[in-house]
Amino acid sequence: MFTVNAYAAPSATEALVRTTLERREVGPHDVLIEIRYAGICHSDIHTVRGEWGEVRYPLTPGHEIAGVVTEVGEQVTKHAVGDRVGVGCMVDSCRECVNCRNGEEQYCLNGMTGTYAAVGRDGEITQGGYSTHIVVTEDFVVKIPDGLELDVAAPLLCAGITTYSPLHHWGAGPGKKVAVVGLGGLGHMAVKLAHAMGAEVTVLSQTLNKQDDGLRLGADDYYATSDPETFTKLANTFDLIVNTVSARIDVDAYLSLLALNGSLVNVGAPAEPLPVNVFSLFTGRRSFAGSSIGGIRETQEMLDFCAEHGLGAEIEVIPADKINDAYERVLASDVRYRFVIDVATLS
Amino acid sequence: MFTVNAYAAPSATEALVRTTLERREVGPHDVLIEIRYAGICHSDIHTVRGEWGEVRYPLTPGHEIAGVVTEVGEQVTKHAVGDRVGVGCMVDSCRECVNCRNGEEQYCLNGMTGTYAAVGRDGEITQGGYSTHIVVTEDFVVKIPDGLELDVAAPLLCAGITTYSPLHHWGAGPGKKVAVVGLGGLGHMAVKLAHAMGAEVTVLSQTLNKQDDGLRLGADDYYATSDPETFTKLANTFDLIVNTVSARIDVDAYLSLLALNGSLVNVGAPAEPLPVNVFSLFTGRRSFAGSSIGGIRETQEMLDFCAEHGLGAEIEVIPADKINDAYERVLASDVRYRFVIDVATLS
Repeated sequence: MFTVNAYAAPSATEALVRTTLERREVGPHDVLIEIRYAGICHSDIHTVRGEWGEVRYPLTPGHEIAGVVTEVGEQVTKHAVGDRVGVGCMVDSCRECVNCRNGEEQYCLNGMTGTYAAVGRDGEITQGGYSTHIVVTEDFVVKIPDGLELDVAAPLLCAGITTYSPLHHWGAGPGKKVAVVGLGGLGHMAVKLAHAMGAEVTVLSQTLNKQDDGLRLGADDYYATSDPETFTKLANTFDLIVNTVSARIDVDAYLSLLALNGSLVNVGAPAEPLPVNVFSLFTGRRSFAGSSIGGIRETQEMLDFCAEHGLGAEIEVIPADKINDAYERVLASDVRYRFVIDVATLS
Repeated sequence: MFTVNAYAAPSATEALVRTTLERREVGPHDVLIEIRYAGICHSDIHTVRGEWGEVRYPLTPGHEIAGVVTEVGEQVTKHAVGDRVGVGCMVDSCRECVNCRNGEEQYCLNGMTGTYAAVGRDGEITQGGYSTHIVVTEDFVVKIPDGLELDVAAPLLCAGITTYSPLHHWGAGPGKKVAVVGLGGLGHMAVKLAHAMGAEVTVLSQTLNKQDDGLRLGADDYYATSDPETFTKLANTFDLIVNTVSARIDVDAYLSLLALNGSLVNVGAPAEPLPVNVFSLFTGRRSFAGSSIGGIRETQEMLDFCAEHGLGAEIEVIPADKINDAYERVLASDVRYRFVIDVATLS
């Protein structure tokens, strides 16, 4: 074990504080990563505040991790000292179930191991990326391609893959009409990615406040969902709607915007069940679906795609001592579009 | 106009009575069909009782129609006098929208014309198949292939296509695990069709009462949903679940039975919205979808498939004066598996 600097929540109700945590020794298949940047995801806030279930404290969140390899275990073959690498929402899985064997570790039937607030395969509670170093088994570490800066790459490890995966799975591309609900951390990446994939992209946001940004990021159209006419005008339009909003939405209203065989895919996670009128699904053979991050192979594919298309997240870099302020601003939707912690400020 | 014998509901609360109704003259594109058999669908009951919205009375239901062509309009090219034909749930559509042009008339963006209780393109209320004759535009008439008896073919026009279409669309076939929820009029056809398509078929029914039937019809397995262990044992199992039950179900419980990328497809139509926990969709990238009958081209394809595989509905043929008794027995689930009216008894 060795000690590293970190920020951690002492309890569900207290601000995060500067502290230290213990990392495991580098095992034969492990990679030690010096973390350079860590993104702040809305789910970090939900988790540390106990809103998604009980967690053990102190807890260090952070699952959008970009850094450099500084040590590798003796049997590591995929990564070398000096490599620029990333770690996302998971650091392990059972590797035996059908989903793991198919490279869909995020859907591990025995439960993937979350990067923080999970019980690791060694029985220890995992601790995330708001820290100077992390030790991760090599199979759950991806390469950040040249040409992608580490700061704008960090949010790709969650916000990027969480939107890339459904866009890719549901066939976003030329000739497809894709709507993105919500222009936040996930939504802004969904717009960039869908546009780069060749789809026609529409943003559906509560207001037109971020319209200029949306169009600049690659959207072809931008509508306010607070205007009821939006739902009349866009009825039966989209092949795919990616809903990045965690707040409760009127599922039937969004389903009505889908063309034949269209899918409304939630990546946002509302806490309460949503009522669905089955007649909304009958009409146009529509689907209401969910998607959860992406597999390791797909995460690498996403990073390569981003490098190829020059895509990174739109970020605001902050020092570690601004994490608590950043949390308040995330909750107030006052960020365009992702806070990234400069981990050098933790050293 | 000409007068034909029929059974009709005088109001939402009265029994159906023997009466007559007016059919339009055979137009240039019309086919006159002498109806031989008409199936009784649960939705007939919902509709005549006003449970799916207000309707005009007297109303003659029936959208599982099998008969013989006795006259054709001068411009008819698809059907000839003497042809054995069927009519299902729709008798027209706009024919101009993208869905109609793609042969998915059931999803007509301007609203397909239902076989009964709808406003036809001529402004008249349509009247269904519990009658001796019907006049239908040739494009909405399908051929009943040789080798398929008219009595067992009649229910295919709704129960058959309603289950064939989602099975086909969601890829039921060899290597796929399909569950059918409910073994009634729709469910028993879903089992026969999925089995004939080569899928591994499981029936999920409230009790094991119909287990022998289910296995005889082609199911590989049969489970009682009243037993909570069913949901534990079958977790993450199915690629496709076709839910034929119109009663309220626990959507999350059924979603938990889906394997990665699986779909729960409702063809049953519960009146109230169903709550869905988005986390049930995240897990395994699952979809909750709906499917509504099928297009005309697909209905023909289904009939050809049934003829090829020797599939018809399991029926109990009744004289017209037993329609009201049959309704009560349908509501009590006391039918294996479809009542079919012998329309000769109406002459």
